[in-house]
Amino acid sequence: MNKIIIVFSGGLDSTVLLYKYINKGYDVKPITFYYGQKHHKEIDCASSICLKLGLKHSIINLQSLQRFLSSGLTSNDITIPDGHYEDETMKLTVVPNRNSILLNIAAAYAESNKINKIAIGVHAGDHAIYPDCRKEFIDKINELFLTSMYNPVTVEAPFLNLTKTDIVKLGASLKVPFEDTWSCYKGEIYHCGKCGTCTERIEAFKMANIKDKVMK
Amino acid sequence: MNKIIIVFSGGLDSTVLLYKYINKGYDVKPITFYYGQKHHKEIDCASSICLKLGLKHSIINLQSLQRFLSSGLTSNDITIPDGHYEDETMKLTVVPNRNSILLNIAAAYAESNKINKIAIGVHAGDHAIYPDCRKEFIDKINELFLTSMYNPVTVEAPFLNLTKTDIVKLGASLKVPFEDTWSCYKGEIYHCGKCGTCTERIEAFKMANIKDKVMK
Repeated sequence: MNKIIIVFSGGLDSTVLLYKYINKGYDVKPITFYYGQKHHKEIDCASSICLKLGLKHSIINLQSLQRFLSSGLTSNDITIPDGHYEDETMKLTVVPNRNSILLNIAAAYAESNKINKIAIGVHAGDHAIYPDCRKEFIDKINELFLTSMYNPVTVEAPFLNLTKTDIVKLGASLKVPFEDTWSCYKGEIYHCGKCGTCTERIEAFKMANIKDKVMK
Repeated sequence: MNKIIIVFSGGLDSTVLLYKYINKGYDVKPITFYYGQKHHKEIDCASSICLKLGLKHSIINLQSLQRFLSSGLTSNDITIPDGHYEDETMKLTVVPNRNSILLNIAAAYAESNKINKIAIGVHAGDHAIYPDCRKEFIDKINELFLTSMYNPVTVEAPFLNLTKTDIVKLGASLKVPFEDTWSCYKGEIYHCGKCGTCTERIEAFKMANIKDKVMK
Protein backbone atom coordinates (compact mmCIF):
# COMPACT_ATOMS: atom_id res chain seq x y z
CA MET A 1 0.00 0.00 0.00
CA ASN A 2 1.44 3.36 -1.01
CA LYS A 3 2.30 5.58 1.92
CA ILE A 4 2.01 9.33 1.89
CA ILE A 5 2.63 12.00 4.51
CA ILE A 6 -0.16 14.57 4.70
CA VAL A 7 0.69 18.04 6.04
CA PHE A 8 -2.48 18.23 8.06
CA SER A 9 -3.52 21.34 9.97
CA GLY A 10 -7.08 20.32 10.85
CA GLY A 11 -8.32 23.07 8.57
CA LEU A 12 -10.73 22.58 5.71
CA ASP A 13 -8.24 22.25 2.85
CA SER A 14 -5.94 19.71 4.46
CA THR A 15 -8.89 17.66 5.72
CA VAL A 16 -10.24 17.37 2.18
CA LEU A 17 -6.69 16.49 1.12
CA LEU A 18 -6.56 13.72 3.73
CA TYR A 19 -9.88 12.29 2.55
CA LYS A 20 -8.79 12.53 -1.08
CA TYR A 21 -5.74 10.32 -0.47
CA ILE A 22 -7.66 7.88 1.72
CA ASN A 23 -10.17 7.65 -1.11
CA LYS A 24 -7.35 6.91 -3.56
CA GLY A 25 -6.30 3.97 -1.38
CA TYR A 26 -3.20 5.47 0.23
CA ASP A 27 -1.88 4.58 3.66
CA VAL A 28 -1.94 8.18 4.93
CA LYS A 29 0.37 9.52 7.64
CA PRO A 30 -1.01 12.87 8.86
CA ILE A 31 1.41 15.20 10.61
CA THR A 32 0.45 18.44 12.32
CA PHE A 33 2.79 21.24 13.33
CA TYR A 34 2.46 23.50 16.33
CA TYR A 35 4.63 26.53 15.59
CA GLY A 36 3.26 28.87 18.21
CA GLN A 37 -0.16 29.63 16.72
CA LYS A 38 -2.10 31.78 19.17
CA HIS A 39 -4.65 29.04 19.65
CA HIS A 40 -4.74 25.26 19.23
CA LYS A 41 -8.29 24.85 17.95
CA GLU A 42 -7.03 23.57 14.60
CA ILE A 43 -4.75 21.05 16.31
CA ASP A 44 -7.62 19.79 18.47
CA CYS A 45 -9.68 19.40 15.29
CA ALA A 46 -6.82 17.59 13.57
CA SER A 47 -6.53 15.12 16.46
CA SER A 48 -10.24 14.55 16.60
CA ILE A 49 -10.50 13.86 12.85
CA CYS A 50 -7.59 11.37 13.03
CA LEU A 51 -9.11 9.67 16.05
CA LYS A 52 -12.42 9.18 14.26
CA LEU A 53 -10.60 7.79 11.22
CA GLY A 54 -8.44 5.50 13.36
CA LEU A 55 -5.25 7.12 12.06
CA LYS A 56 -1.99 7.53 13.93
CA HIS A 57 -1.46 11.29 14.23
CA SER A 58 1.95 12.87 14.66
CA ILE A 59 2.10 16.33 16.21
CA ILE A 60 5.43 18.08 15.91
CA ASN A 61 6.13 20.81 18.40
CA LEU A 62 8.04 23.75 16.95
CA GLN A 63 6.95 26.19 19.62
CA SER A 64 10.51 27.40 20.08
CA LEU A 65 10.18 29.09 16.69
CA GLN A 66 7.39 31.31 17.96
CA ARG A 67 9.54 33.96 19.55
CA PHE A 68 11.26 34.93 16.34
CA LEU A 69 8.57 34.39 13.73
CA SER A 70 6.97 37.79 13.33
CA SER A 71 3.40 37.16 12.28
CA GLY A 72 -0.10 38.03 13.41
CA LEU A 73 -0.70 34.28 13.71
CA THR A 74 1.98 33.80 16.34
CA SER A 75 2.64 37.14 18.03
CA ASN A 76 0.38 38.58 20.68
CA ASP A 77 1.66 42.04 19.76
CA ILE A 78 -0.02 41.89 16.35
CA THR A 79 -3.79 41.88 15.93
CA ILE A 80 -5.19 39.68 13.19
CA PRO A 81 -6.94 41.89 10.65
CA ASP A 82 -10.45 41.27 9.35
CA GLY A 83 -11.21 41.28 5.65
CA HIS A 84 -10.26 39.57 2.42
CA TYR A 85 -7.02 37.74 1.79
CA GLU A 86 -6.31 40.12 -1.05
CA ASP A 87 -6.13 43.08 1.32
CA GLU A 88 -2.67 44.44 2.04
CA THR A 89 -3.23 44.11 5.80
CA MET A 90 -3.62 40.34 5.45
CA LYS A 91 0.14 40.17 4.94
CA LEU A 92 0.23 40.31 8.73
CA THR A 93 -0.91 36.69 8.69
CA VAL A 94 2.12 35.55 6.70
CA VAL A 95 4.42 33.37 8.78
CA PRO A 96 7.77 33.80 7.01
CA ASN A 97 8.86 30.69 5.12
CA ARG A 98 6.33 28.57 6.97
CA ASN A 99 5.46 25.98 4.34
CA SER A 100 9.09 25.55 3.44
CA ILE A 101 9.98 24.78 7.06
CA LEU A 102 7.06 22.37 7.42
CA LEU A 103 7.79 20.55 4.16
CA ASN A 104 11.48 20.26 4.98
CA ILE A 105 10.69 18.65 8.31
CA ALA A 106 8.09 16.43 6.64
CA ALA A 107 10.77 15.36 4.17
CA ALA A 108 13.10 14.35 7.00
CA TYR A 109 10.23 12.42 8.57
CA ALA A 110 9.59 10.78 5.19
CA GLU A 111 13.21 9.74 4.71
CA SER A 112 13.40 8.40 8.27
CA ASN A 113 10.30 6.29 7.68
CA LYS A 114 11.08 5.19 4.12
CA ILE A 115 8.17 7.13 2.66
CA ASN A 116 8.67 8.98 -0.61
CA LYS A 117 5.63 11.21 -0.95
CA ILE A 118 4.26 14.23 0.87
CA ALA A 119 1.02 16.07 0.10
CA ILE A 120 0.14 19.65 1.02
CA GLY A 121 -3.18 21.44 0.55
CA VAL A 122 -2.10 24.81 -0.87
CA HIS A 123 -4.64 26.17 -3.33
CA ALA A 124 -5.23 28.99 -5.80
CA GLY A 125 -6.82 31.27 -3.20
CA ASP A 126 -3.60 31.27 -1.18
CA HIS A 127 -1.48 32.61 -4.00
CA ALA A 128 -2.21 36.29 -3.62
CA ILE A 129 -0.43 36.81 -0.33
CA TYR A 130 1.45 33.60 0.54
CA PRO A 131 4.51 33.11 -1.67
CA ASP A 132 5.10 29.62 -0.26
CA CYS A 133 1.75 28.45 -1.63
CA ARG A 134 2.54 29.06 -5.31
CA LYS A 135 3.54 26.68 -8.08
CA GLU A 136 7.03 28.20 -8.34
CA PHE A 137 7.63 27.31 -4.71
CA ILE A 138 6.36 23.72 -5.03
CA ASP A 139 8.51 23.21 -8.13
CA LYS A 140 11.60 24.55 -6.37
CA ILE A 141 11.15 22.51 -3.22
CA ASN A 142 10.88 19.38 -5.32
CA GLU A 143 14.14 20.31 -7.03
CA LEU A 144 15.70 21.02 -3.62
CA PHE A 145 14.80 17.58 -2.24
CA LEU A 146 16.58 15.94 -5.18
CA THR A 147 19.79 17.52 -3.86
CA SER A 148 19.33 17.44 -0.08
CA MET A 149 18.66 13.76 0.63
CA TYR A 150 19.65 10.28 -0.42
CA ASN A 151 16.14 9.14 -1.26
CA PRO A 152 14.05 11.51 -3.34
CA VAL A 153 10.87 12.73 -1.66
CA THR A 154 8.21 14.25 -3.89
CA VAL A 155 5.78 16.95 -2.79
CA GLU A 156 2.31 16.77 -4.34
CA ALA A 157 0.01 19.78 -4.24
CA PRO A 158 -3.13 18.57 -6.03
CA PHE A 159 -5.16 21.66 -5.06
CA LEU A 160 -2.68 24.11 -6.55
CA ASN A 161 -5.10 25.18 -9.25
CA LEU A 162 -8.33 24.67 -7.33
CA THR A 163 -10.30 27.45 -5.69
CA LYS A 164 -11.66 27.07 -2.17
CA THR A 165 -15.08 26.52 -3.77
CA ASP A 166 -13.69 23.61 -5.78
CA ILE A 167 -12.24 22.15 -2.58
CA VAL A 168 -15.57 22.45 -0.76
CA LYS A 169 -17.30 20.67 -3.65
CA LEU A 170 -14.67 17.93 -3.66
CA GLY A 171 -14.95 17.60 0.13
CA ALA A 172 -18.72 17.24 -0.09
CA SER A 173 -18.36 14.47 -2.66
CA LEU A 174 -15.89 12.69 -0.34
CA LYS A 175 -18.23 13.11 2.64
CA VAL A 176 -15.69 15.18 4.60
CA PRO A 177 -17.07 16.12 8.04
CA PHE A 178 -16.69 19.88 7.51
CA GLU A 179 -18.09 20.50 10.98
CA ASP A 180 -14.99 18.88 12.48
CA THR A 181 -12.61 21.30 10.74
CA TRP A 182 -11.40 24.67 11.96
CA SER A 183 -10.59 27.68 9.77
CA CYS A 184 -10.79 30.84 11.90
CA TYR A 185 -7.54 32.66 12.70
CA LYS A 186 -8.96 33.60 16.07
CA GLY A 187 -9.32 30.94 18.75
CA GLU A 188 -12.74 31.83 20.09
CA ILE A 189 -15.54 29.33 20.83
CA TYR A 190 -17.07 29.76 17.37
CA HIS A 191 -15.65 30.87 14.03
CA CYS A 192 -15.56 34.71 14.06
CA GLY A 193 -16.94 35.00 10.53
CA LYS A 194 -14.85 38.10 9.85
CA CYS A 195 -11.16 37.27 9.53
CA GLY A 196 -9.55 36.48 6.16
CA THR A 197 -9.98 32.75 6.39
CA CYS A 198 -13.57 32.91 7.72
CA THR A 199 -14.49 35.34 4.92
CA GLU A 200 -12.98 32.99 2.36
CA ARG A 201 -14.73 29.94 3.87
CA ILE A 202 -18.14 31.61 3.92
CA GLU A 203 -17.79 32.66 0.28
CA ALA A 204 -16.63 29.21 -0.80
CA PHE A 205 -19.59 27.40 0.77
CA LYS A 206 -21.96 29.99 -0.67
CA MET A 207 -20.50 29.58 -4.16
CA ALA A 208 -20.60 25.79 -3.80
CA ASN A 209 -24.19 26.07 -2.59
CA ILE A 210 -23.45 23.90 0.44
CA LYS A 211 -24.49 24.57 4.02
CA ASP A 212 -21.58 25.05 6.45
CA LYS A 213 -22.66 24.01 9.92
CA VAL A 214 -19.74 25.68 11.70
CA MET A 215 -20.78 29.21 10.72
CA LYS A 216 -23.44 30.86 12.81
CA MET B 1 26.73 47.62 9.46
CA ASN B 2 25.83 44.56 7.39
CA LYS B 3 24.08 41.87 9.37
CA ILE B 4 24.49 38.17 8.77
CA ILE B 5 23.10 35.09 10.47
CA ILE B 6 25.71 32.43 11.15
CA VAL B 7 24.56 28.82 11.44
CA PHE B 8 26.82 28.15 14.39
CA SER B 9 27.25 24.71 15.93
CA GLY B 10 30.22 25.42 18.17
CA GLY B 11 32.30 23.09 16.01
CA LEU B 12 35.53 24.03 14.31
CA ASP B 13 34.17 24.97 10.88
CA SER B 14 31.38 27.26 12.01
CA THR B 15 33.63 28.93 14.58
CA VAL B 16 36.13 29.81 11.86
CA LEU B 17 33.15 31.00 9.79
CA LEU B 18 32.00 33.23 12.65
CA TYR B 19 35.48 34.76 12.99
CA LYS B 20 35.74 35.22 9.23
CA TYR B 21 32.59 37.37 9.12
CA ILE B 22 33.54 39.31 12.25
CA ASN B 23 36.88 39.99 10.59
CA LYS B 24 35.07 41.25 7.48
CA GLY B 25 33.22 43.77 9.64
CA TYR B 26 29.81 42.09 9.76
CA ASP B 27 27.34 42.39 12.61
CA VAL B 28 27.08 38.62 13.16
CA LYS B 29 24.01 36.87 14.57
CA PRO B 30 24.98 33.33 15.59
CA ILE B 31 22.19 30.78 15.91
CA THR B 32 22.59 27.26 17.22
CA PHE B 33 20.16 24.40 16.81
CA TYR B 34 19.49 21.61 19.26
CA TYR B 35 17.82 18.85 17.29
CA GLY B 36 18.28 16.02 19.74
CA GLN B 37 22.02 15.44 19.42
CA LYS B 38 23.06 12.80 21.95
CA HIS B 39 25.19 15.34 23.82
CA HIS B 40 25.28 19.11 24.13
CA LYS B 41 29.03 19.63 24.28
CA GLU B 42 28.98 21.56 21.00
CA ILE B 43 26.16 23.79 22.22
CA ASP B 44 28.05 24.54 25.44
CA CYS B 45 31.08 25.44 23.33
CA ALA B 46 28.95 27.64 21.08
CA SER B 47 27.57 29.54 24.08
CA SER B 48 30.98 29.93 25.62
CA ILE B 49 32.50 31.29 22.39
CA CYS B 50 29.65 33.81 21.99
CA LEU B 51 29.95 34.88 25.62
CA LYS B 52 33.67 35.58 25.22
CA LEU B 53 32.98 37.57 22.04
CA GLY B 54 30.13 39.50 23.67
CA LEU B 55 27.64 38.24 21.06
CA LYS B 56 23.95 37.60 21.55
CA HIS B 57 23.48 33.87 20.96
CA SER B 58 20.18 32.35 19.87
CA ILE B 59 19.63 28.67 20.60
CA ILE B 60 16.68 27.11 18.84
CA ASN B 61 15.24 24.00 20.38
CA LEU B 62 14.06 21.44 17.85
CA GLN B 63 14.22 18.51 20.21
CA SER B 64 10.78 17.36 19.18
CA LEU B 65 12.33 16.33 15.86
CA GLN B 66 14.56 13.81 17.58
CA ARG B 67 12.09 10.98 17.81
CA PHE B 68 11.64 10.68 14.08
CA LEU B 69 15.07 11.60 12.73
CA SER B 70 16.81 8.28 12.31
CA SER B 71 20.51 8.97 12.72
CA GLY B 72 23.42 7.82 14.82
CA LEU B 73 23.74 11.41 16.01
CA THR B 74 20.29 11.48 17.56
CA SER B 75 19.20 7.91 18.26
CA ASN B 76 20.44 5.93 21.23
CA ASP B 77 19.69 2.74 19.28
CA ILE B 78 22.45 3.47 16.76
CA THR B 79 26.12 3.44 17.72
CA ILE B 80 28.32 6.06 16.10
CA PRO B 81 30.92 4.28 13.99
CA ASP B 82 34.65 5.03 14.13
CA GLY B 83 36.65 5.68 11.00
CA HIS B 84 36.86 7.96 8.00
CA TYR B 85 33.97 9.98 6.62
CA GLU B 86 34.38 8.20 3.33
CA ASP B 87 33.48 4.87 4.91
CA GLU B 88 30.05 3.52 4.10
CA THR B 89 29.25 3.12 7.80
CA MET B 90 29.58 6.87 8.32
CA LYS B 91 26.23 7.25 6.56
CA LEU B 92 24.82 6.40 9.99
CA THR B 93 25.78 9.95 11.02
CA VAL B 94 23.60 11.53 8.33
CA VAL B 95 20.62 13.37 9.84
CA PRO B 96 18.12 13.38 6.96
CA ASN B 97 17.68 16.82 5.39
CA ARG B 98 19.32 18.47 8.39
CA ASN B 99 20.97 21.47 6.75
CA SER B 100 17.88 22.19 4.72
CA ILE B 101 15.74 22.32 7.88
CA LEU B 102 18.27 24.51 9.68
CA LEU B 103 18.67 26.92 6.76
CA ASN B 104 14.91 27.19 6.27
CA ILE B 105 14.43 28.13 9.90
CA ALA B 106 17.38 30.52 9.70
CA ALA B 107 15.69 32.12 6.67
CA ALA B 108 12.48 32.67 8.64
CA TYR B 109 14.55 34.18 11.44
CA ALA B 110 16.27 36.39 8.88
CA GLU B 111 13.02 37.64 7.33
CA SER B 112 11.55 38.29 10.78
CA ASN B 113 14.59 40.37 11.72
CA LYS B 114 15.08 42.14 8.38
CA ILE B 115 18.39 40.39 7.71
CA ASN B 116 19.13 39.19 4.19
CA LYS B 117 22.17 36.96 4.54
CA ILE B 118 22.92 33.60 6.15
CA ALA B 119 26.28 31.83 6.24
CA ILE B 120 26.90 28.12 6.73
CA GLY B 121 30.23 26.33 7.15
CA VAL B 122 29.84 23.32 4.85
CA HIS B 123 33.13 22.35 3.23
CA ALA B 124 34.65 20.02 0.65
CA GLY B 125 35.30 17.25 3.19
CA ASP B 126 31.58 16.99 3.91
CA HIS B 127 30.63 16.26 0.33
CA ALA B 128 31.30 12.54 0.26
CA ILE B 129 28.50 11.48 2.56
CA TYR B 130 26.31 14.53 3.28
CA PRO B 131 24.19 15.53 0.27
CA ASP B 132 23.04 18.73 1.98
CA CYS B 133 26.62 20.02 2.13
CA ARG B 134 27.17 20.11 -1.63
CA LYS B 135 27.15 22.99 -4.11
CA GLU B 136 24.01 21.67 -5.85
CA PHE B 137 22.15 21.89 -2.56
CA ILE B 138 23.35 25.42 -1.74
CA ASP B 139 22.39 26.57 -5.25
CA LYS B 140 18.93 25.04 -4.98
CA ILE B 141 18.18 26.45 -1.55
CA ASN B 142 19.06 29.91 -2.81
CA GLU B 143 16.64 29.41 -5.70
CA LEU B 144 14.01 28.15 -3.25
CA PHE B 145 14.26 31.25 -1.04
CA LEU B 146 13.56 33.44 -4.07
CA THR B 147 10.16 31.76 -4.26
CA SER B 148 9.25 31.13 -0.62
CA MET B 149 9.50 34.59 0.93
CA TYR B 150 8.83 38.24 0.26
CA ASN B 151 12.37 39.39 0.94
CA PRO B 152 15.11 37.35 -0.65
CA VAL B 153 17.56 35.77 1.78
CA THR B 154 20.89 34.59 0.39
CA VAL B 155 22.87 31.66 1.73
CA GLU B 156 26.65 32.01 1.57
CA ALA B 157 28.86 28.96 1.91
CA PRO B 158 32.38 30.36 1.60
CA PHE B 159 34.06 27.10 2.64
CA LEU B 160 32.34 25.03 -0.03
CA ASN B 161 35.59 24.40 -1.87
CA LEU B 162 37.93 24.45 1.12
CA THR B 163 39.31 21.36 2.81
CA LYS B 164 39.32 21.03 6.58
CA THR B 165 43.07 21.76 6.42
CA ASP B 166 42.36 25.05 4.60
CA ILE B 167 39.82 25.93 7.31
CA VAL B 168 42.33 25.19 10.10
CA LYS B 169 44.91 27.41 8.38
CA LEU B 170 42.36 30.20 7.95
CA GLY B 171 41.27 29.82 11.58
CA ALA B 172 44.85 30.10 12.77
CA SER B 173 45.32 33.32 10.77
CA LEU B 174 42.13 34.71 12.38
CA LYS B 175 43.29 33.66 15.87
CA VAL B 176 40.31 31.34 16.39
CA PRO B 177 40.44 29.74 19.86
CA PHE B 178 40.39 26.16 18.56
CA GLU B 179 40.53 24.87 22.12
CA ASP B 180 37.02 26.29 22.71
CA THR B 181 35.48 24.31 19.82
CA TRP B 182 34.03 20.80 19.91
CA SER B 183 34.17 18.29 17.06
CA CYS B 184 33.72 14.79 18.50
CA TYR B 185 30.45 12.96 17.77
CA LYS B 186 30.66 11.37 21.21
CA GLY B 187 29.96 13.47 24.28
CA GLU B 188 32.72 12.25 26.54
CA ILE B 189 34.99 14.47 28.66
CA TYR B 190 37.65 14.64 25.94
CA HIS B 191 37.52 14.21 22.17
CA CYS B 192 37.56 10.44 21.47
CA GLY B 193 40.10 10.76 18.65
CA LYS B 194 38.50 7.88 16.74
CA CYS B 195 35.12 8.90 15.29
CA GLY B 196 34.77 10.34 11.77
CA THR B 197 34.96 13.96 12.80
CA CYS B 198 37.86 13.43 15.25
CA THR B 199 39.78 11.53 12.58
CA GLU B 200 39.17 14.37 10.13
CA ARG B 201 40.20 17.02 12.68
CA ILE B 202 43.42 15.25 13.63
CA GLU B 203 44.43 14.89 9.97
CA ALA B 204 43.58 18.53 9.20
CA PHE B 205 45.74 19.93 12.02
CA LYS B 206 48.55 17.57 11.06
CA MET B 207 48.39 18.66 7.41
CA ALA B 208 48.23 22.32 8.46
CA ASN B 209 51.17 21.72 10.78
CA ILE B 210 49.35 23.31 13.70
CA LYS B 211 49.09 21.96 17.24
CA ASP B 212 45.52 21.14 18.35
CA LYS B 213 45.30 21.47 22.12
CA VAL B 214 41.99 19.60 22.40
CA MET B 215 43.43 16.28 21.24
CA LYS B 216 45.28 14.21 23.79
